[in-house]
Amino acid sequence: MNEVGVLLFENFETLDVFGPVEILGKRDEDYRIGFYSQSGGLIKNAHGVSMETESLAKIKNGVDVFLIPGGLGTRKEVDNEQLIACLHEIAQKSKYVLTICTGSALLAKTGLIDGKKATSNKRAFNWVVSQRQSVNWIARARWTVDDKYYTSSGVSAGMDMTLGFLSDVHGIALARQVAFQIEYNWQENKEEDNFSDQHT
Amino acid sequence: MNEVGVLLFENFETLDVFGPVEILGKRDEDYRIGFYSQSGGLIKNAHGVSMETESLAKIKNGVDVFLIPGGLGTRKEVDNEQLIACLHEIAQKSKYVLTICTGSALLAKTGLIDGKKATSNKRAFNWVVSQRQSVNWIARARWTVDDKYYTSSGVSAGMDMTLGFLSDVHGIALARQVAFQIEYNWQENKEEDNFSDQHT
Repeated sequence: MNEVGVLLFENFETLDVFGPVEILGKRDEDYRIGFYSQSGGLIKNAHGVSMETESLAKIKNGVDVFLIPGGLGTRKEVDNEQLIACLHEIAQKSKYVLTICTGSALLAKTGLIDGKKATSNKRAFNWVVSQRQSVNWIARARWTVDDKYYTSSGVSAGMDMTLGFLSDVHGIALARQVAFQIEYNWQENKEEDNFSDQHT
Repeated sequence: MNEVGVLLFENFETLDVFGPVEILGKRDEDYRIGFYSQSGGLIKNAHGVSMETESLAKIKNGVDVFLIPGGLGTRKEVDNEQLIACLHEIAQKSKYVLTICTGSALLAKTGLIDGKKATSNKRAFNWVVSQRQSVNWIARARWTVDDKYYTSSGVSAGMDMTLGFLSDVHGIALARQVAFQIEYNWQENKEEDNFSDQHT
């Protein structure tokens, strides 16, 4: 069984979290999902979501898949040194790290992806790049893979990336099967990006 | 401000809920979202999600948009007479009712969509039809609209339907803008259905 740890913080983006969770959750024979925040307890966002979490301390030795979402809350959390130190420790010890949307800004802040390929939401791209210029930021990509780090473009792209992750780990037939089960038209090509022109 | 009431029950399907919530949540100038269950409190599902809810009694006079998700939990809830009576009351008094996936089986049980068009997840289609044969079940549709009732096909189709709902209410330009903001390749045609062949 692979342990999936999902980071939550105030004002995370709803679909950044629950798109990938739906996809990994469909493989409950392979993945068990837990939700974590800096101090545990209820975490809310602007969409009325109020989710129960455990403390990140519980996964300080890493997980198999560490998932870092984006959202407006990242604007505050990039300056939360305690959280970034915590993410550094967990990401370093985890087998895979997946970020969605501006979640890549939080991962970048740890320094772990310096020189590595990464992408982010195209509407917040310049802000993300400004957080850590030593990352090899890719402006045109649905998602990127470099070493154990997966980073996706905005919101919905997290679903395509997570299917890409399943494809890399379990083969494309299984990934397509999951997409079919949830009646999702999976964009399989990570280099195709219909939204990069809104790059600001 | 339009009030959105989202029904939750044990073992709801994650993306059935949070795909539409992401889309309506992006229009926070128009929609305010609340989550409700039969008795209120924390509601869990098989993907590790644990969501805080209020009691359905709080919206017994209806809402502007009542959202009913599907998931394995519907297998149990179709026989929950108290819940179905409660859904009947709220759906009847609400301005719009949107169901995702097997959520249409719960709405069908209320009798409110007898003779009306509706669809559902194609992998559970025969089970859904068996719950209420007097509905005009449509086997090939991404989503259907009949009167104030919107029903979608499986899981991801809820996102296409919710964008279709925004399009009907606010115009297609706004719906396309929301899809673009969340970098979602919206399938705009509700009659196109790549998944109806898996109809069982």
